[in-house]
Amino acid sequence: MSFQDADEHFSDAEVVGMETAISAARQGVRGANPLVGAVIIDADGTVLAIGHHLGAGTPHAEADAIASLRGTRRDLSAATIIVTLEPCNHRGRMGPCTQAILDAGIGNVVFAVADPHVPAAGGAQRLRREGINVRSGLLAQEARELNKQWFVAVAQGRPFVTARLAQTVDGRIAAEDGTSQWITSVQSRRDSHTLRARVDAIVVGTGTVLADNPRLTARDDAGMETAKQPLRVVMGMRVTAADAAVRGAAGSDASAEANGGFVQLHTHDPAVVLAELQARGIGHLMIEGGSRINAAFLAAGLVDELIVYLAPTLLGSGIPALKNLGITTLADAQQWEWDTTTAAGPVERMGQDLKLTLMPATTPAPTNLEG
Amino acid sequence: MSFQDADEHFSDAEVVGMETAISAARQGVRGANPLVGAVIIDADGTVLAIGHHLGAGTPHAEADAIASLRGTRRDLSAATIIVTLEPCNHRGRMGPCTQAILDAGIGNVVFAVADPHVPAAGGAQRLRREGINVRSGLLAQEARELNKQWFVAVAQGRPFVTARLAQTVDGRIAAEDGTSQWITSVQSRRDSHTLRARVDAIVVGTGTVLADNPRLTARDDAGMETAKQPLRVVMGMRVTAADAAVRGAAGSDASAEANGGFVQLHTHDPAVVLAELQARGIGHLMIEGGSRINAAFLAAGLVDELIVYLAPTLLGSGIPALKNLGITTLADAQQWEWDTTTAAGPVERMGQDLKLTLMPATTPAPTNLEG
Repeated sequence: MSFQDADEHFSDAEVVGMETAISAARQGVRGANPLVGAVIIDADGTVLAIGHHLGAGTPHAEADAIASLRGTRRDLSAATIIVTLEPCNHRGRMGPCTQAILDAGIGNVVFAVADPHVPAAGGAQRLRREGINVRSGLLAQEARELNKQWFVAVAQGRPFVTARLAQTVDGRIAAEDGTSQWITSVQSRRDSHTLRARVDAIVVGTGTVLADNPRLTARDDAGMETAKQPLRVVMGMRVTAADAAVRGAAGSDASAEANGGFVQLHTHDPAVVLAELQARGIGHLMIEGGSRINAAFLAAGLVDELIVYLAPTLLGSGIPALKNLGITTLADAQQWEWDTTTAAGPVERMGQDLKLTLMPATTPAPTNLEG
Repeated sequence: MSFQDADEHFSDAEVVGMETAISAARQGVRGANPLVGAVIIDADGTVLAIGHHLGAGTPHAEADAIASLRGTRRDLSAATIIVTLEPCNHRGRMGPCTQAILDAGIGNVVFAVADPHVPAAGGAQRLRREGINVRSGLLAQEARELNKQWFVAVAQGRPFVTARLAQTVDGRIAAEDGTSQWITSVQSRRDSHTLRARVDAIVVGTGTVLADNPRLTARDDAGMETAKQPLRVVMGMRVTAADAAVRGAAGSDASAEANGGFVQLHTHDPAVVLAELQARGIGHLMIEGGSRINAAFLAAGLVDELIVYLAPTLLGSGIPALKNLGITTLADAQQWEWDTTTAAGPVERMGQDLKLTLMPATTPAPTNLEG
């Protein structure tokens, strides 16, 4: 099934439903999983439920919409669930959406774009086998735009990669003497910890370990480690000391310890890091510096999302946010664009700072999305 | 008269009127002149007119409000004009506001803050001499906040200084090979030309003249020079070539030539530049680089407004926006804040770019505002 397969007929109510589903999707957060929205309409087009996905580890959009109908005991055999992405068919943390749709007795499915993620794909096929009326391709272009970098990451068989910078207006992440705590506001740092709790892994270079000795744990406002902890990854050849904070048990309780973990990857090659983490089941990686590591991933074209916490301060010298991207002339500058796909928008205020979210401006069309 | 002199009694209508005048002021633009708003109310508190100032060369707020009453032939002897700044008493481009108030027959004046600008001051005194009932100090703190850096510049007896940067997200204003045309969008460059037409003078260093050979003229969308042109200033010791574009006649017609002009100041000291330009009657100076000149003014604490056109691009190397501010550790970083005083706000979209407007976060209280 191709996402461009739009020879199907769609009713006006289905078109409006998909527009609503796309708007709902924008309320979510992206990472290991894409932004997804779902709308359930009955036979006369009345909207019965709207759902969206709030990020890995939370209910999928279909389940979210279906959950809001729980207890109504309504016959949904003539109803249609309209989803921005093909319902998944794998038993992930949340169970397959195909099963949830079958259990709810919904008779019709319309989705925009096929799910290219191998473990999740095949949802449409299974639903058809079970006698559900399934059509696809409605507003496929819009639905793809919503998650274009996520499709790229899936097509390349690697984790979705977020790079996080905390810098001054003039692009410095530390002063001449190496001091960097704290360039950004309390609110920005809190937001960073929310990101840490959301991603599956964080990577830093050995230089950052030596300079800052970070723990790389996700902590709440009280400084306590959150239940879900990312895998802590150090990349590079230098030895990470036995007493480095990054090696410490992530959690103060058993569940956190189970979630966290530490690994050093003895490479300077971002592609090797991503292949290794993909093999370990990491769906979302966050890069936390230093400038060489940031630049290595960026120069390789392996960053899907760039988050910049911009402090209203000036240093004039010190460590730049990025080192050498291999660019010598302006015509070769990396082109990005402000990420307007989420409801939060590309510019958010974080205390005294701005949080800027960008994505690559030009995305080579992946070739294996037609599956 | 002190701006803190708030022993006066003010009616509720006057308080609301001043709040309205402050809101109106925010619609304006700041530079050589501060943001000013004016409201005219009649004896029972009804608002008759609202005005604000749109920048040097346009009517003052009082005149703007009075103009909207023209033709009504109303008796204003019981009316009150409420202004965020003491009405000026000098024959500038627009004639004294004191005279406009007298001509309109307005019997009462309430203002927030005394005008510390020597050629303009003395308005309250003159109005009282003419029998007008004048009171001051209403919402003085709020009115001062609206223009705090302008008060600093006036107190220091120098032009208001805007620094303009056009940079990548990672703080570069040119690539390694010096290419910088164009880092920013068409819309950002148009906005820069609007700024050029508004300021009285633009300064660059000799390095920028040698590297970019800029004209430094204000041009409209069609590339034609606007009627008002800034004085073009080059600072530094190196010779500006006889055929340098910056020396050229500014205007394509007589009025533009009359407005423009060129001067080289043989100094590296920003304070010397400002003293010289103050003596030439320059009220608003814009700094357009390069990084050394930007840094020299910033390091001296002589920038009142920082405008950053931020392009969603990355270079990773090349020329940084600023060079050496003399800061070696993070604790000494220059603290700025997003400028929320104008209605436009601190973040504006300019095509693909963001325009960020900042002002110094901490303002030492000037000592000579009590006059």
